[in-house]
Amino acid sequence: MTLDVALMLDLLGVFFFAVSGSLLAARQGFDLVGSLLLGSLVGLGGGVLRDVILNSGPPAAFSNPIYFAPPLLAAAVVYFLAGKVERGSRLILTFDAGGLALFCITGTLKALESGMNPVAALLLGVTTAVGGGVLRDVTANQTPRLFDPRDLYAIPALLGAGITAALWYLGWLDLATGTVAAVLVFALRMLGLRFGWHAPLAARSWARPRFRRG
Amino acid sequence: MTLDVALMLDLLGVFFFAVSGSLLAARQGFDLVGSLLLGSLVGLGGGVLRDVILNSGPPAAFSNPIYFAPPLLAAAVVYFLAGKVERGSRLILTFDAGGLALFCITGTLKALESGMNPVAALLLGVTTAVGGGVLRDVTANQTPRLFDPRDLYAIPALLGAGITAALWYLGWLDLATGTVAAVLVFALRMLGLRFGWHAPLAARSWARPRFRRG
Amino acid sequence: MTLDVALMLDLLGVFFFAVSGSLLAARQGFDLVGSLLLGSLVGLGGGVLRDVILNSGPPAAFSNPIYFAPPLLAAAVVYFLAGKVERGSRLILTFDAGGLALFCITGTLKALESGMNPVAALLLGVTTAVGGGVLRDVTANQTPRLFDPRDLYAIPALLGAGITAALWYLGWLDLATGTVAAVLVFALRMLGLRFGWHAPLAARSWARPRFRRG
Repeated sequence: MTLDVALMLDLLGVFFFAVSGSLLAARQGFDLVGSLLLGSLVGLGGGVLRDVILNSGPPAAFSNPIYFAPPLLAAAVVYFLAGKVERGSRLILTFDAGGLALFCITGTLKALESGMNPVAALLLGVTTAVGGGVLRDVTANQTPRLFDPRDLYAIPALLGAGITAALWYLGWLDLATGTVAAVLVFALRMLGLRFGWHAPLAARSWARPRFRRG
Repeated sequence: MTLDVALMLDLLGVFFFAVSGSLLAARQGFDLVGSLLLGSLVGLGGGVLRDVILNSGPPAAFSNPIYFAPPLLAAAVVYFLAGKVERGSRLILTFDAGGLALFCITGTLKALESGMNPVAALLLGVTTAVGGGVLRDVTANQTPRLFDPRDLYAIPALLGAGITAALWYLGWLDLATGTVAAVLVFALRMLGLRFGWHAPLAARSWARPRFRRG
Repeated sequence: MTLDVALMLDLLGVFFFAVSGSLLAARQGFDLVGSLLLGSLVGLGGGVLRDVILNSGPPAAFSNPIYFAPPLLAAAVVYFLAGKVERGSRLILTFDAGGLALFCITGTLKALESGMNPVAALLLGVTTAVGGGVLRDVTANQTPRLFDPRDLYAIPALLGAGITAALWYLGWLDLATGTVAAVLVFALRMLGLRFGWHAPLAARSWARPRFRRG
């Protein structure tokens, strides 16, 4: 996968996550500036976390200001169009799933290209993918969606990062295979939401989850 | 602006933010140690974030322990004097505004001197200025003040960072012009609070903000 | 203290903190994946924070995947055994105290060996020790235990970091003295909990703390 293609996919992931952040900002009654800032935090947070951990110079989001274009676009789109769509959280979750699908691929790839071993790259890819969403929810004072036991969130990201590391190791990673991996992650996340697929609870013998959001 | 003056202004900003943190700690019923720690987090958090992103050695707050003097002083001041002042949030907001005004200048300056391009420096200056306050509010389990749609918070910081970058580019940045910029940011923030100046909501057609603090 | 012994103590600290995270995940009704992730965040968060601040290459937790073994073990232990123990928070606090005791030693040591001055190393040791727990509580949407004014949390960590810096400076730091320091920190934290030892409130003249958890 050439770097230009990787940058394009990365920016698309930033846009998806930024829309989820701006939609949440709208739902919480924040203003347009808050929408831009929460969108930036969600869209860029995971990648900044990744680059800070890789420790190889300032994060891409700061050294290359093009990264702030997707959050600007996302805040504008939400400003003009949000009233036309449902107020529920389904749309937020859909854009969040798009960001998750792209970031577990691009995050793992960037870690591998920085010379990390495949296991570390996989873990950093998952961190990149889930990091922005956790920052979004914690900042908006909600329990992170990542911890909702009623569907799958980290498992699709883990799968996508694993596939990426394997494809890269085999020399098969290109735009086509990367896109297939991203679609797979997105589909698994959305199907899990739709059909309520879920993992076992954290403690085997405690019957009733007391999880509530918000 | 010489480095000594920049350090002095930076320490003053740390003190202002630390007072806002210690006051919040007092209001939340934390103890003296919690007051010192929350003050340190607010006062030093934005700068540590900035230095971690600049990725040029350990953050100033750790390599130069003088940075812990302002939080110590702030915790002592709040301990002895807090009972004499109003319990409301106005005082917290005033000190917070002082920190905001100084940090958007010193943060942008430090980024420029580390060789960042002006746009990136502006963004990092804003991050430095709002970072400590977001950490304070998230840690004390409140929706960050940054997102309150009833007044302006990020816009004054953005303006201050922009002025700083422009002055630096023109070679006009010194103690006098820097102080004028900081006073301008502080005044804009306080006037916005006083008169309820605010930005448009995140979604044009959603009538009623559901924002509540705390 | 050889590096192998330091690594062993570090991994034990990761395990203690990870158990506290997985227990909290179980209590909040998270699933097994959430238990693993919250355990990893608590167990590894403080050390990642420390290494990011030290700014000397990628954090140990990512460059050496053995660090993910304790969180895996902790999630499994909690999954199979949590139902057999009390549901209260006492067990969480006990494991948290174990992590605190070990991390204030290993965090200070790592900072000293990276060439930090003793004061900075002490502060970074305390940051390492309390960082994971703050991340745990903020992520699970609770006011950090660190700020509970009814017992001592940061003071034992500060004492442990101070003893470590002193022992290291005198050339007396080895497995025996390090273990004694850790036991001291653990005992002080647990005795403080048991007998309700506490520090003065943040504001001298405000009578009634309004602190509530959760």
